[in-house]
Amino acid sequence: MNKEELFQEIQKKRSFLCIGLDTDIRKIPQFIKETSEDPIFDFNKAIIDATQHLCVAYKPNLAFYESMGSFGLKSFEKTVLYLQQNYPEQFIIADAKRGDIGNTGEQYAKSFFEHLKVDALTVSPYMGADSVLPSLKHPNKWTILLALTSNEGSEDFQMMQDANGEYLFERVLRISKSWADDEQLMYVVGATKAQMLERIRLIVPNHFLLVPGVGSQNGSLEEVAQYGLNRQCGLLVNASRSIIYADDTEVFAIRAAEEAEKLRRQMSELLYQYKLVDSL
Amino acid sequence: MNKEELFQEIQKKRSFLCIGLDTDIRKIPQFIKETSEDPIFDFNKAIIDATQHLCVAYKPNLAFYESMGSFGLKSFEKTVLYLQQNYPEQFIIADAKRGDIGNTGEQYAKSFFEHLKVDALTVSPYMGADSVLPSLKHPNKWTILLALTSNEGSEDFQMMQDANGEYLFERVLRISKSWADDEQLMYVVGATKAQMLERIRLIVPNHFLLVPGVGSQNGSLEEVAQYGLNRQCGLLVNASRSIIYADDTEVFAIRAAEEAEKLRRQMSELLYQYKLVDSL
Repeated sequence: MNKEELFQEIQKKRSFLCIGLDTDIRKIPQFIKETSEDPIFDFNKAIIDATQHLCVAYKPNLAFYESMGSFGLKSFEKTVLYLQQNYPEQFIIADAKRGDIGNTGEQYAKSFFEHLKVDALTVSPYMGADSVLPSLKHPNKWTILLALTSNEGSEDFQMMQDANGEYLFERVLRISKSWADDEQLMYVVGATKAQMLERIRLIVPNHFLLVPGVGSQNGSLEEVAQYGLNRQCGLLVNASRSIIYADDTEVFAIRAAEEAEKLRRQMSELLYQYKLVDSL
Repeated sequence: MNKEELFQEIQKKRSFLCIGLDTDIRKIPQFIKETSEDPIFDFNKAIIDATQHLCVAYKPNLAFYESMGSFGLKSFEKTVLYLQQNYPEQFIIADAKRGDIGNTGEQYAKSFFEHLKVDALTVSPYMGADSVLPSLKHPNKWTILLALTSNEGSEDFQMMQDANGEYLFERVLRISKSWADDEQLMYVVGATKAQMLERIRLIVPNHFLLVPGVGSQNGSLEEVAQYGLNRQCGLLVNASRSIIYADDTEVFAIRAAEEAEKLRRQMSELLYQYKLVDSL
């Protein structure tokens, strides 16, 4: 999916919501665990069926699947396949935060883009160009580089400043944007750092940003929109726990859809307010 | 395995060699692929049986296994189990270069330390304290933090300097060593950056360092030893491709052992020269 197609989906659904499938076996409803042979997949399937009209992207976080070993990875593969077969318009982000050099980096990219056929892969920039370039070799696929994350620990290194006052995360943006254009690169910027979006948009005005931290982490969607929206929206705002764990009874999927709809409605109003759609 | 036990293994074998199991299906001997139901595991098994007396650690790089999907992860799990059951004295490093915040980071740590029961996990520091602390919660397990890697791209961000001249990788060492002591933390420092080891040892004199880049990447073992050895050795030097792909015929495991023995012999001489063992 290219940038224009993603923007068209956003306009069509009046939503720039990405739902994080951080599916934790300990948190899914008891009745699914008692009746299903693959509770993680069945939980995801129910969440997807209930919310797919409200969001433009799904972001399964690999850590949750890997913690279950090869069985968990199978659930991950089935989830990706289910999305591709039933909702091919959804943008699928494998949130793996990988990053390794040529040889190994190529294996990562191959794993996600060729074997699993996801649209995008999150990558850590710490190891520099040759750890990111392998995933940029794949045409029509996206690399989403960690820039300024939503957690407290982002202060430790990402906010380091050089003698000219440039932050590490700004250096990541400035240097990496020479590796590929805004049709292949996106950046992770936490909603809890919305004020920084102004500085970020000076460096990458046209790139899409993947913004976690709205929802459970209390980032402000209004602020994210104010400083982050561009002419093609340029934002995918992710919420995970606040949606998928809204309820743990038999109505969990309906409640998840209600939470997703709350965010979508806000997004619809913001898209209208910033003239990116011509009706609510 | 604690630090003293690791040092004892090093003294016993006169080796601080770690063998990287970067097992690439395209590079393993054709005859294994034709006869085996799980060629990746059978290749690893043969390499391990032939080299286990020459090294103190094995480091499977997850990327290679993940690129084969859940089938590849199964081969990884079998390899780890084979090591644990047959060579429990080996230190097993899951080279995953993970790093994610609390919630998710705990899943990573759980996956590797509780499910797979490896000794150590490589972690990327980019997201800061709360992405590293979850793996430090596990007693008697090791977190190996990327500091200064062996690749060209390490210049892009790791060599960024602040107004006082401190490099990012030095900041990573300085800040992270307050999170845990040298019984839980190690650092990745590339052999191609041996000159920097002198600066690194000023900050972390007692920590073990995992040093890739000897072998195919041409780092110098003498230089690494000169600047990196400490009173408990403090080094695990990794070689991958130069050992495991030394040959692609039926004698591949014997040739791998020959390459490993070349490095072990050099290491034995260095350990003797620096008075860490009392005979060759």
